[in-house]
Amino acid sequence: MNNALQLTSPQAAPYSDYKREFDFPAAAVFRAHADPALYGQWIGPRGLTTRVEQLDCRSGGSFRFVQHGDDGVEHAFHGVFHTVRDNEFILMTFEYEGFPDVVTLEYTRFEDLAGGRCRLAGHSVFPTLEDRERYLAGGMESGMAEGYDRLEELLGRAG
Amino acid sequence: MNNALQLTSPQAAPYSDYKREFDFPAAAVFRAHADPALYGQWIGPRGLTTRVEQLDCRSGGSFRFVQHGDDGVEHAFHGVFHTVRDNEFILMTFEYEGFPDVVTLEYTRFEDLAGGRCRLAGHSVFPTLEDRERYLAGGMESGMAEGYDRLEELLGRAG
Repeated sequence: MNNALQLTSPQAAPYSDYKREFDFPAAAVFRAHADPALYGQWIGPRGLTTRVEQLDCRSGGSFRFVQHGDDGVEHAFHGVFHTVRDNEFILMTFEYEGFPDVVTLEYTRFEDLAGGRCRLAGHSVFPTLEDRERYLAGGMESGMAEGYDRLEELLGRAG
Repeated sequence: MNNALQLTSPQAAPYSDYKREFDFPAAAVFRAHADPALYGQWIGPRGLTTRVEQLDCRSGGSFRFVQHGDDGVEHAFHGVFHTVRDNEFILMTFEYEGFPDVVTLEYTRFEDLAGGRCRLAGHSVFPTLEDRERYLAGGMESGMAEGYDRLEELLGRAG
């Protein structure tokens, strides 16, 4: 089976839609999103170190994390959780502080598949088409793909 | 001067953009958004009564309010504040609980004009085009227009 990230971005509307399967149940993949100690170990591309300052993954909660690579330059991200249903659904806002006030709405659904596997399905909504293009040009897709690969490796080590 | 709501919704992208001027300063119009006792007096179309259960208008805060008309049927709305800069900017999520998980991202900017007037500029981002059409078909524009008229009347009575 091929667990690779599949991301599509329609030309006329400011979305990105994506799917990624995992050889682990939805509850385990959800927990890697909701537990600050796990989240910091996989989010973002390889080679970055993440410090999770806050991750209160419940409806009405907030998060902020800071990443740096070998150059030591820090990049911070923050948002709020509009809705969280454990093991099923996260709907949150997301802002890269390097693009102030460019905030995306991030839908993430977790669905169990046969054989202890699961599918993550995401829908990102950008405030403008130009903002989405800026994120894509900044390596969004490869960063997501590497992050989910790291997530799968993390769950493999824990098993 | 014409203070009427001007709302446009591009055909291909899931936005609505709007402007509304007021014969009051930005600080007064902002306060009508941020003060629970004021907010419940103007939000939504005429003829509805609003009970503001929570309105914590600061970055990371949440809100929920419930409206009913003469038929007594209640309609509830809630969301979270991603960013609030007093008198200038509110960026929040917004969900009508009758359309579960259909969440919009609402940008509102407040800008002072000459003569003690101000302009409110909004950008609503819907998760899909179909969701925006559903909101527009449900009377979104007239509800907003009447709400802003009520806001202006409220500030007039307070002055």
